[in-house]
Amino acid sequence: MSLKTIKLTLEYVGTNYCGWQTQPNGISVQKVLEDCLKKITGEDIRVHGSGRTDSGVHAEEQVAHFRAETRLDASAFQRALNSLLPEDIVVKDSAEVSPDFHAQFSQKGKRYRYAILNRRHPSAFLRPFVWHFPYALNVERMREAAGYLVGEHDFAAFQAAKSDIKSTVRRLTLLEIHERDGQILIFFEGNGFLKHMVRIVVGTLVEIGSGYRKPEEMKEILASRDRKKAGRTAPPHGLCLEKVFY
Amino acid sequence: MSLKTIKLTLEYVGTNYCGWQTQPNGISVQKVLEDCLKKITGEDIRVHGSGRTDSGVHAEEQVAHFRAETRLDASAFQRALNSLLPEDIVVKDSAEVSPDFHAQFSQKGKRYRYAILNRRHPSAFLRPFVWHFPYALNVERMREAAGYLVGEHDFAAFQAAKSDIKSTVRRLTLLEIHERDGQILIFFEGNGFLKHMVRIVVGTLVEIGSGYRKPEEMKEILASRDRKKAGRTAPPHGLCLEKVFY
Repeated sequence: MSLKTIKLTLEYVGTNYCGWQTQPNGISVQKVLEDCLKKITGEDIRVHGSGRTDSGVHAEEQVAHFRAETRLDASAFQRALNSLLPEDIVVKDSAEVSPDFHAQFSQKGKRYRYAILNRRHPSAFLRPFVWHFPYALNVERMREAAGYLVGEHDFAAFQAAKSDIKSTVRRLTLLEIHERDGQILIFFEGNGFLKHMVRIVVGTLVEIGSGYRKPEEMKEILASRDRKKAGRTAPPHGLCLEKVFY
Repeated sequence: MSLKTIKLTLEYVGTNYCGWQTQPNGISVQKVLEDCLKKITGEDIRVHGSGRTDSGVHAEEQVAHFRAETRLDASAFQRALNSLLPEDIVVKDSAEVSPDFHAQFSQKGKRYRYAILNRRHPSAFLRPFVWHFPYALNVERMREAAGYLVGEHDFAAFQAAKSDIKSTVRRLTLLEIHERDGQILIFFEGNGFLKHMVRIVVGTLVEIGSGYRKPEEMKEILASRDRKKAGRTAPPHGLCLEKVFY
């Protein structure tokens, strides 16, 4: 028996969960993992994620870690977890890492993808993974507006109301909009994201793309630091955590 | 009011249905469509599909038709159906067609795709749409075996037991195996398919790819016309109807 730090790389479909973090109501991905680890080890083991994902948000690559006094190696944990986990949560990789690794505090940034299905009829297959928006969107206007957000800014206007956080300054290193197979895919990379930040930016971009606001308004919204100036929060199911950088 | 023949192009996720055709047990895609048409028109309208899909099988493009005495045009039916249908069934297109059109009898052939996820760990996202097969598969052996099936043959060995059909001769015009993103995709095109034919061929190909049988055995199985000589029936959720040809 030795004390090990195990890093897990996970994917999950967020549809059936109240998000990453354990909440009073609803089942969280974290809780499901901890319940499985209890079955495997007999111990109460705390799983730490790289950060929260909201209720209904998906992850192609979420990172988490836990520490355990165990004889099992990392690959045995992967096999055991994958045999116990529900089918919408999968351990893609596992590794024993240095004891000073921490999924949240060691991370350097994240990449998110937001998917909009922009056509008249919905999709039976993509439904759980895209925001179906059946009205015209001008992607060039959205790109122009997005340009104002790249760089280090105070993103207070794009933070959920009632957030209680020291600094709202974040560095957005990439905000790109691609069109592919009838979908508009919006990619975000940055050193940190405020609560609902990606979804509020997407909601604002869609109001600009649909002609309801001008692209230059994005600059004013950012400068205002006022949540009420920004657009509506886009629905969670179009959002996917793509990668955590270390 | 005039008698119209409406052709519907549909997609559906088969997971929650007992298949296309109405059965004593379970909800069928056909029944769901007929219930919605009853709400729209007040009439009992029979919907005819291009053919059945098994319980759990998906369709990216299924074709169906119905006849109705109605003032509504085809696009009004599409809008009304899409607003009433559950989210896993979508009308992709609708058109008024000649009265002699029949979704089943006018069709000239079909294309199916079978997807195998061939890697150790499953996928939370692809789970409802692939057969997860975590053991080694030799795709070259599978291709060699598949070659014996292309052309016009008596496919009786690849038909579900207890089928009651006049001729078991079918023309398979294409059987291709592609590898893409960790998936093995098997494409079938032909002028007709026996019950479970695609799934029994896939099950046999997997037994050959995993080394359990030799590629040349496929020739013998075909010649035997004996269902018991062929492999197991692959699970339905890896199968998708891709296209109906007219």
